[in-house]
Amino acid sequence: MTYIKENFLLTNKTAEKLYFGYAKDMPIFDYHCHLPEKEILDNKQFTDIFEIWLKGDHYKWRLMRNYGVNEEYITGNKSNKEKFIAYCETLSTAFGNPLYHWSQVELKEFFNCELEINKENAEQIWDWCNEYIKVNQITPQKLIEQSNVEYIFTTNEVFDNLQTFLDISKKGYNFKVIPAFRADKIMNIEAEKYNDFVSRLGDITSLDFLEKALEERLKAFIEVGTVASDIALQSVYEVSTREDAEKVFIKRRKGDIVSEKESQIFKGYLTYFLMKLYAKYDIRCELHLGAMRNNNTEMLKRLGLDTGYDSIAEDNSIRLLSRLMDRLNDENSLPKTIIFNLNPKMNSEIMTLIGCFQDDSTKGKLQYGPAWWFLDNKVGMEKHLEDLTATGHIAAFVGMLTDSRSFLSYPRHHYFRRILCNYLGKLMENGEITNDIELVGKVVKDVSFNNSISYFGVKEGV
Amino acid sequence: MTYIKENFLLTNKTAEKLYFGYAKDMPIFDYHCHLPEKEILDNKQFTDIFEIWLKGDHYKWRLMRNYGVNEEYITGNKSNKEKFIAYCETLSTAFGNPLYHWSQVELKEFFNCELEINKENAEQIWDWCNEYIKVNQITPQKLIEQSNVEYIFTTNEVFDNLQTFLDISKKGYNFKVIPAFRADKIMNIEAEKYNDFVSRLGDITSLDFLEKALEERLKAFIEVGTVASDIALQSVYEVSTREDAEKVFIKRRKGDIVSEKESQIFKGYLTYFLMKLYAKYDIRCELHLGAMRNNNTEMLKRLGLDTGYDSIAEDNSIRLLSRLMDRLNDENSLPKTIIFNLNPKMNSEIMTLIGCFQDDSTKGKLQYGPAWWFLDNKVGMEKHLEDLTATGHIAAFVGMLTDSRSFLSYPRHHYFRRILCNYLGKLMENGEITNDIELVGKVVKDVSFNNSISYFGVKEGV
Amino acid sequence: MTYIKENFLLTNKTAEKLYFGYAKDMPIFDYHCHLPEKEILDNKQFTDIFEIWLKGDHYKWRLMRNYGVNEEYITGNKSNKEKFIAYCETLSTAFGNPLYHWSQVELKEFFNCELEINKENAEQIWDWCNEYIKVNQITPQKLIEQSNVEYIFTTNEVFDNLQTFLDISKKGYNFKVIPAFRADKIMNIEAEKYNDFVSRLGDITSLDFLEKALEERLKAFIEVGTVASDIALQSVYEVSTREDAEKVFIKRRKGDIVSEKESQIFKGYLTYFLMKLYAKYDIRCELHLGAMRNNNTEMLKRLGLDTGYDSIAEDNSIRLLSRLMDRLNDENSLPKTIIFNLNPKMNSEIMTLIGCFQDDSTKGKLQYGPAWWFLDNKVGMEKHLEDLTATGHIAAFVGMLTDSRSFLSYPRHHYFRRILCNYLGKLMENGEITNDIELVGKVVKDVSFNNSISYFGVKEGV
Repeated sequence: MTYIKENFLLTNKTAEKLYFGYAKDMPIFDYHCHLPEKEILDNKQFTDIFEIWLKGDHYKWRLMRNYGVNEEYITGNKSNKEKFIAYCETLSTAFGNPLYHWSQVELKEFFNCELEINKENAEQIWDWCNEYIKVNQITPQKLIEQSNVEYIFTTNEVFDNLQTFLDISKKGYNFKVIPAFRADKIMNIEAEKYNDFVSRLGDITSLDFLEKALEERLKAFIEVGTVASDIALQSVYEVSTREDAEKVFIKRRKGDIVSEKESQIFKGYLTYFLMKLYAKYDIRCELHLGAMRNNNTEMLKRLGLDTGYDSIAEDNSIRLLSRLMDRLNDENSLPKTIIFNLNPKMNSEIMTLIGCFQDDSTKGKLQYGPAWWFLDNKVGMEKHLEDLTATGHIAAFVGMLTDSRSFLSYPRHHYFRRILCNYLGKLMENGEITNDIELVGKVVKDVSFNNSISYFGVKEGV
Repeated sequence: MTYIKENFLLTNKTAEKLYFGYAKDMPIFDYHCHLPEKEILDNKQFTDIFEIWLKGDHYKWRLMRNYGVNEEYITGNKSNKEKFIAYCETLSTAFGNPLYHWSQVELKEFFNCELEINKENAEQIWDWCNEYIKVNQITPQKLIEQSNVEYIFTTNEVFDNLQTFLDISKKGYNFKVIPAFRADKIMNIEAEKYNDFVSRLGDITSLDFLEKALEERLKAFIEVGTVASDIALQSVYEVSTREDAEKVFIKRRKGDIVSEKESQIFKGYLTYFLMKLYAKYDIRCELHLGAMRNNNTEMLKRLGLDTGYDSIAEDNSIRLLSRLMDRLNDENSLPKTIIFNLNPKMNSEIMTLIGCFQDDSTKGKLQYGPAWWFLDNKVGMEKHLEDLTATGHIAAFVGMLTDSRSFLSYPRHHYFRRILCNYLGKLMENGEITNDIELVGKVVKDVSFNNSISYFGVKEGV
Repeated sequence: MTYIKENFLLTNKTAEKLYFGYAKDMPIFDYHCHLPEKEILDNKQFTDIFEIWLKGDHYKWRLMRNYGVNEEYITGNKSNKEKFIAYCETLSTAFGNPLYHWSQVELKEFFNCELEINKENAEQIWDWCNEYIKVNQITPQKLIEQSNVEYIFTTNEVFDNLQTFLDISKKGYNFKVIPAFRADKIMNIEAEKYNDFVSRLGDITSLDFLEKALEERLKAFIEVGTVASDIALQSVYEVSTREDAEKVFIKRRKGDIVSEKESQIFKGYLTYFLMKLYAKYDIRCELHLGAMRNNNTEMLKRLGLDTGYDSIAEDNSIRLLSRLMDRLNDENSLPKTIIFNLNPKMNSEIMTLIGCFQDDSTKGKLQYGPAWWFLDNKVGMEKHLEDLTATGHIAAFVGMLTDSRSFLSYPRHHYFRRILCNYLGKLMENGEITNDIELVGKVVKDVSFNNSISYFGVKEGV
């Protein structure tokens, strides 16, 4: 039987009171994920647990590779069941890895399966879950509603068709699905297919046309409820002049290749332009910094993007981030921004910088986003909370998200809430903060859900 | 009633024995602060708690901004009382932030007020403290003497009038006030008013004149007891040649603007010159590294320097620091130096570098300064102690300071001592160090006070 | 009497079960150290404890310098006994420093001496140990066999005579001594004696000759059992072209001095060449990154290399490391590699990068090496385990080594094992991992010893 008990991660009584009394039943606001809206609309019953669990989850693939599993059992030609068994064996001793917890919790919460994940139990779990899917007709909608989710922000390219979101809104689901506006395909000017992407916005022959097209698309997103956007950058670049950026853009539109330097000139300007645009329409900007992508060229060719070959970048651009924010602030154009940083060594740098640009437009206008991707684990979250509270204000924090491609990842919200409650519960038991559990409980509820509602201002919007 | 109990931060019996038996009653040696010596001399009774607590404390201002408080309640036109109430509300849920502890401790220790700081109690605390100030005629001297302070090193510009220190020494206070020599206004050649500052040293038309003037001023400081100096740099710069530095200096003296590169040439040389000068006169050098200042231009214009808009810099200059120290060492001119580093990711780099330049001129000639500014909190201090002890020698450490502009900040010394005793007490209870409490207690006393006395060599000097 | 108890570092019952039931009796595989093979062969009885303990141990020297001890008592003319006493006094309050533990454990394990190390006991310890050495005729072989060591990989220059290893193998020791192939003297082209070193490989007039000579030497090493190599770099350099590298090499061979830039060109290429060579012969590559060496020029002149004047470098080369590994991988020439990183801020960067180049050639083909040198302490190991498990797979880890010049350092393996067992034991007691102690115990045994056996593939090889 699984080691996961009711008080999992809650090491003291006060933590339990906080979790069960204040955190557990709060709805979920998932303000950034990579779920495919089409699958939410279609709402098809899943085939087997492999499809939900392993088919597209590069976190799991990486773990298997770190354990020396043959690629045939990961993305290769082995059967779904063989792959599933290889994963179970890999997981059984992955002590300290977040997947070790997530996978076991997911089995328990979504399949009512208490078996410990290991080689011996693998077949039994396989059978159990697949039977469960069949008997209970498990679909995306069921998983989402069972998880008490109220808001899902998917991540959509600027040229995506938004009809799916209108269709979903007519389905009568208990949750709302809203796209976040992501211009990364328009940002990444070095990409092979760049011109194809741009051309999907129209006959774009100048930077001016591009800017207008982006603004039009943002308005279309806003029509279907959009209040957030997403930018992913390995690093922050210097804000170049519009003239220099245009030169690079025109060169690329003619089909020429641009140098790394030119690419950075374009990105530096476009980041500035987009953030200014977001400020104009009060769109929250979710800025993802610090991933070094596609390290393994051979596997990139074989498997494509987002298959488990990214890592944490050395990002030495805090001065540039400061200059970008200062300029936008000077021009009254700094949007509400959440900075997700992948490199833990930069926590303190970014957190203290954020504190230099707050105002009273909302509680926590500038947010230091939760522990993300490689940091989305117990140690990473605890460090994030420690760093955040030491230099910021915990009660202003918008809390957790899944950033996931999987319909099973909502327990990560509860995982975070347990860690949050344990952190605060320990402080209470140690006499380091107030004994007023109602006051602490209110902070727990706010960080779990309420702060997202007010920060994203969606109640009326949609 | 406040959550602060007698055993605050002491999680085991041995820690309590160490704190109450060895640490608590040691005097305070505050070897770096920003108190205005004039106010110590004048010794006027305070008006209200706002004046002592909130008027100039940008730590508190930042916290309020992080919580989304309107600037009117921070540095704006709201009344002192309204600002005070807004701060109390902000603080009530700032769990994990050092101000959450400091503020509550200060109320208790200086105003005998046990009320928990929150919105509901705010008015009552306001009345209580203001009454307390009136009845007990609270003045700077009283606050300092009550805190058992023996030495205060203020931070003074090289051109400051030193008469105030002579006047203070005649007042018969139980503590000594001594200026630390700071040449930052002469260092920061890019500053608008640079030439005004330099001209306060005389008719300085060459680098030679500047150097002589600085030496004369240092001698004048030494006359009033100075044994320490202060340098604040965002980063360490290459030691340029005297010729190159002079060119930049002459250019600037003619009223020209200097480039960032030129500014670094000048600073690189002047840092070297100053440290050599400090070695000549056996003046301890307190080197502050790693702050990125004035990120928010708009607020800089509105509120000026030191108003809460600084952050932690990315400082990638460990090689340059190594070269600077090596050159000075080679020339028999490396002064006793305390390095304060604001970026926690550099703790280990600097600590191990320091270990390369020790000698027997004193115990811990090169010091890794305590957790400073943004790191001056429980987590930061614990990490500092862990890093320091792992690669250095705890018994050589000169311990804590306030770095503060407030007369209420002495409890930070006790805050540090509690953390120190808890750290050592845990090691004792876990069987990781000796059971000899006298031996451990001696280290506690040394780090709390005695090491500063011997390191700064002041007993005879003043 | 010493504070070291049987359950030292084991804070719970499960940790004790894991340590005593699974870890303690596993043999030792020391896959990287700096022991002199000649001394192992000669196997002379030691003179006194100074000779074994303090004579060449720059870790201890640093600690004494950090405590302000006069160099006369460290590397100077004081007697062995005086130096020993000075060390004991220094150590008595070095709480938190790894030497504080190591020294006390070594006394206990190798000399059966339970006296606490301090000034008062120093003479008694001196006499006790020296008597013990005499009575028990302590030699290198005895110390090694008593420690249950099975494999020792020494670090040898490419031109070293390998006869000693053949001679050792005939001595009938219970352990094997195998050289690791280190080409650093051929790498460091800026060194004064570079051409002397190269000439020891023959009449090397071209890069081609150099490459062939290195391959020949590697084959000779393999003849005596070599399966591992060692590279130490302050930073990773760009892989330059063979042509550019050759130009630099030829210039240097003519006796010219090369610039830092040229030196990096050569090193970038040679690192690539060597790793490719290691892949060809399935030689594990132990890559040591991040030391800034010889900071103190004056002491370098007086005492030479490796005397305690190195520190942690700022290494900003993660992108170059990614490019190097990608290129080798693309060419099917990425060897099994263990990366030792000295800068803790880079743990997560390197660990996530490693995860991008795994395959099924072995469990954990790319390894993140254990906490090393300045990080080889309790806090460093705990952080290493936390970081490793969060982003990698603990069961694939090859575990600890000594990296030492001392025959007394084997208890560091047990020190690591205690920390490992405590880490896993806590997870079990907290309900964060399985209750299956056999499964967890197997991981403990694998990380302690078995993984090294399979990773280095030595059973058959030697």
